[in-house]
Amino acid sequence: MSIDHRPIAVFDSGLGGLTVVRALRERLPSESLIYFGDTARVPYGSKSAEAVTRFTREIFHFLLRFEPKSIVVACNTASAVAVPELADEFDVPVVGTVEPGAAAAAEAADGGLVAILATEATIASNQYRNAINRCNPRIPVVQKACPLFVPLVEEGREDRDPVVRLAVAEYLEAVRRLRPAVAVLGCTHYPILRGAIAEYLGEGVVLIDTADATSAAVADLLDRAGALSPDGARGRLFCYVSDNTQRFQSLSTRFLGRTITDVVRICPEEFAILQPPEPAHARLRVSV
Amino acid sequence: MSIDHRPIAVFDSGLGGLTVVRALRERLPSESLIYFGDTARVPYGSKSAEAVTRFTREIFHFLLRFEPKSIVVACNTASAVAVPELADEFDVPVVGTVEPGAAAAAEAADGGLVAILATEATIASNQYRNAINRCNPRIPVVQKACPLFVPLVEEGREDRDPVVRLAVAEYLEAVRRLRPAVAVLGCTHYPILRGAIAEYLGEGVVLIDTADATSAAVADLLDRAGALSPDGARGRLFCYVSDNTQRFQSLSTRFLGRTITDVVRICPEEFAILQPPEPAHARLRVSV
Repeated sequence: MSIDHRPIAVFDSGLGGLTVVRALRERLPSESLIYFGDTARVPYGSKSAEAVTRFTREIFHFLLRFEPKSIVVACNTASAVAVPELADEFDVPVVGTVEPGAAAAAEAADGGLVAILATEATIASNQYRNAINRCNPRIPVVQKACPLFVPLVEEGREDRDPVVRLAVAEYLEAVRRLRPAVAVLGCTHYPILRGAIAEYLGEGVVLIDTADATSAAVADLLDRAGALSPDGARGRLFCYVSDNTQRFQSLSTRFLGRTITDVVRICPEEFAILQPPEPAHARLRVSV
Repeated sequence: MSIDHRPIAVFDSGLGGLTVVRALRERLPSESLIYFGDTARVPYGSKSAEAVTRFTREIFHFLLRFEPKSIVVACNTASAVAVPELADEFDVPVVGTVEPGAAAAAEAADGGLVAILATEATIASNQYRNAINRCNPRIPVVQKACPLFVPLVEEGREDRDPVVRLAVAEYLEAVRRLRPAVAVLGCTHYPILRGAIAEYLGEGVVLIDTADATSAAVADLLDRAGALSPDGARGRLFCYVSDNTQRFQSLSTRFLGRTITDVVRICPEEFAILQPPEPAHARLRVSV
């Protein structure tokens, strides 16, 4: 059995990907994580596939300097529109949210209707629908973009907020009428509104949090590759953002459950000239 | 009297600045306009002053290739946080929205309370408050950030939309209780929600649309400098965006009142290597 001390890199358009960090830390507490949030260009959900792919490629190149054992694309939009094109371009295993989320949805659906709730760009890509139908071509899928959910969460609103409840009811009225078996929370921000969505859709609708499914897929990948960190190691978290470290810190509590105090700002324009600090664990690679 | 055929450059974080284009075209139909919307990095309102200033500087350099007679910063956030620093850095007259908007508010207030409604970054800069108090230090000012207004408008919602009405009531409840004389619509998107804001605040509150005030300031500047285009010339509009030309086109109707069909995409990464096409009018500079 081999042990791999290299970190896992996690990339998101902003800070929503911290829900994936949280799930990874719960499942793999020995792993060190490098997080990059592109807060200077957030949000990705309303931007073109071409721009999202270009941004993602730039950030992959930056993250590779940390010699990660895997790159986890926590952003559903980047997972849907950029990962299919980029996964083969880089010599590192890439895990996005779409395949794990779709597999979990297909399993939970048991032949019933799956509703995909996501950003405009994710919905336009049809990637969730296609991935679910690769698991089971007979599962019916309905897709609904919910563009306000991200700004509602970024503003600090929660389940009981009246604007949230009105927006949830408006977006999901037609979906609810179709009586879905499963609803995929296909954007990192949406689990923050889980209570309002669950209440509106009613009992019996299984909500799929892609952060959980993604962290399980990462654990499985590393386990099969014999690339887990040693049990009992204390994984660390290093955060980089392209803008606004303070805003990131103050909002991190909602996504991660604790406040991050050590955040470094690095702009995409500086990727080419700056060397990121080399974390101690990146220097080690031990195989036993 | 001299005549200046050079275009006016208009810069915005996205497409909201088309409200300024609309006002300029109504007031100065002979002028040709170059518009740049930074749709790859929109919105600016929740980003740091440092990032907004860096983006604005990059875009100024791009716009200078068109040899504009003036750069109009239609984005209130960039006007508030970047123009004070950049105005002296470039050898071209720069007009932002803050000074004209503040002057119009101070005049309309007649000593009464002025409410500034704007993005988080604009409010945090205190530029509107300071500019109003430079006009008249005794005018009381109250400021309120309304972060949802931009995504509400970008999603295509209008005055009568229930989510808009709920958000307006929530943001403006405390403001209304203070009985303002004037409310400044301190973001290019907010005039689209003018009806809902006016109805909620009630009769007697003067709403200041900064697009109108800004276009008047541009006309005044060019007139005083003897730099207007000849009467009867037919001004043209050239649009550049950093992402998503299609989305820009489809949303342009709401801001401009007509659909723009000719939009060129140019990314900030390409500014350094691409030469923009040289419009015919930029080659001319006639003094009579």
